[in-house]
Amino acid sequence: MLNQAHFQTLIATKAARCVIAAQGRRLVDFGLRRTHGYDAGLKAARCAYLAGFDATSNVLAGQRYGIPIAGTMAHSYVEAFSDELSAFRAYARAYPDACVLLVDTYDTLDGARRAAVVGQELAAAGQRLRGVRLDSGDLAELSFSVRKILNVARLDDATIFASGSLDEHGIAAALARGAPIDAFGVGSRLGTSADAPYPDMAYKLVDFGGRPVLKLSTGKATWPSPKQVWRCMTGRDQLEDYVGLADEASQADGQPLLVEVMRNGQRLAITDVATARAHAQQELAALRAAYRVLADPRQAPVQFTPALRYLREALTRKFVC
Amino acid sequence: MLNQAHFQTLIATKAARCVIAAQGRRLVDFGLRRTHGYDAGLKAARCAYLAGFDATSNVLAGQRYGIPIAGTMAHSYVEAFSDELSAFRAYARAYPDACVLLVDTYDTLDGARRAAVVGQELAAAGQRLRGVRLDSGDLAELSFSVRKILNVARLDDATIFASGSLDEHGIAAALARGAPIDAFGVGSRLGTSADAPYPDMAYKLVDFGGRPVLKLSTGKATWPSPKQVWRCMTGRDQLEDYVGLADEASQADGQPLLVEVMRNGQRLAITDVATARAHAQQELAALRAAYRVLADPRQAPVQFTPALRYLREALTRKFVC
Repeated sequence: MLNQAHFQTLIATKAARCVIAAQGRRLVDFGLRRTHGYDAGLKAARCAYLAGFDATSNVLAGQRYGIPIAGTMAHSYVEAFSDELSAFRAYARAYPDACVLLVDTYDTLDGARRAAVVGQELAAAGQRLRGVRLDSGDLAELSFSVRKILNVARLDDATIFASGSLDEHGIAAALARGAPIDAFGVGSRLGTSADAPYPDMAYKLVDFGGRPVLKLSTGKATWPSPKQVWRCMTGRDQLEDYVGLADEASQADGQPLLVEVMRNGQRLAITDVATARAHAQQELAALRAAYRVLADPRQAPVQFTPALRYLREALTRKFVC
Repeated sequence: MLNQAHFQTLIATKAARCVIAAQGRRLVDFGLRRTHGYDAGLKAARCAYLAGFDATSNVLAGQRYGIPIAGTMAHSYVEAFSDELSAFRAYARAYPDACVLLVDTYDTLDGARRAAVVGQELAAAGQRLRGVRLDSGDLAELSFSVRKILNVARLDDATIFASGSLDEHGIAAALARGAPIDAFGVGSRLGTSADAPYPDMAYKLVDFGGRPVLKLSTGKATWPSPKQVWRCMTGRDQLEDYVGLADEASQADGQPLLVEVMRNGQRLAITDVATARAHAQQELAALRAAYRVLADPRQAPVQFTPALRYLREALTRKFVC
């Protein structure tokens, strides 16, 4: 239970931060090669999509969960040809409608110039170059030069796709510099949640045979009894969460956040991935900007109801001699 | 391929560092609840055992890979009783031969005193308390007080097991303070390799149809052609690694490190976990101390053979205009 809830919460959170940073630009999950096993790769693809990513390069995840799949050419494709221009031309012939050329195998700017040649050849044949992909070096810096190369070749509608050691911080930094990047591939740092590889989430007994119980361990104390969390808008811009006993009346006209999803080992409802994705986007959009910023987001203060505090104090007195 | 090789290398490395830090003390993998999915939990248990851990709390991994399983009581077991002493007595009745009591549910020192009571009751019945487990607070500090409580109760052979936010650094710090801890449970930080959640390992084309190929991307350039690595002892305390073409003669009388394990999709040999574990321990033991320390370990300098350097330069000239 904890293994599954914890990991998927972790990746969905990291992915949601990337979505916020990308300000509407297209995001593709590239994490499989660095996730912790294949199960993690599948779940990470699903969680990233739930949180607002547009696609995954994980083909099995696409098949299993109905997530759009996307990818560009591989470096090995380019290396398999005697020179880069021949590789680009062969790729354009094979994928005339989805031609995104990976330009950094040897040198990004040389690669971009060769991609522009192929783009003009496609245009002459009534087709079009979808874009190029940068995968190394200073992505923001390169994107300015590559955009110029494409525009001079009258390939203004060819997009720039960037990947390589990205997460929400890298995306935000590139866009803050005004980098003309249209889409991002996000891999290792998303699939492992590299800067925060686990949250301190726990799964503890709170009631046994109708008797509320708790744990008082230093730094790991728990609150007793089944609970509910109510979320309230207390001002134009201010959230407040109330934690109380599950059978208490609604607090401060708040919205209850906990929903029963399983009873007697049976799931009560199964939500498909599209519905869950729409729900996540709606909930994220409902949060005021101060709660959604990447650095030092505002946090909702958490209040505990008098009934819950009283119960905890009574139990604590019982167990601390 | 990369997903599997990368993750298992990561966890085995982290686990080997814990083994070094523990200086012979017993280590148990507790990572499942925080690993990235259940597949990661299984593989992490296997890799930790390979690297020298003694057991895992992951019962499925025990069954699947033949790894010893181990665990102590849960906080929920203690909470299910009206008081801690009743819980300890019931557990001792249920597991008279493997009684390790978790003492921090309410207060570690009170819990240790109650464990000592049960230890004396077991002794009076001709049985013995195997030990106690600390799972929160300052583990090293508490271990001194708990050791005193046990010794005063003439339970000198009851062991102290510690867990809670540990990795090689926490283990080393506790032992450096002389903490009388006999065994460690290592969880989240091992199972996610929290301080280094992925290595920058890649899987790249080096040869296509007999033609050596390479990638020159900024910061991600590769060396062409199939290769071998030879490891040499160049002094009493000094390793040196030579990287060369696979068909070159052995370098500097070194030991070749790369071994073919698959041909035409068939594995050439299957190594069971016990053999792999013995091999890992032998290899680790063969490394001089300077290479095994946790902070700033000495690194073997890496030399590239003239033939490999010549090939790379020739190919680079070809691809950089």
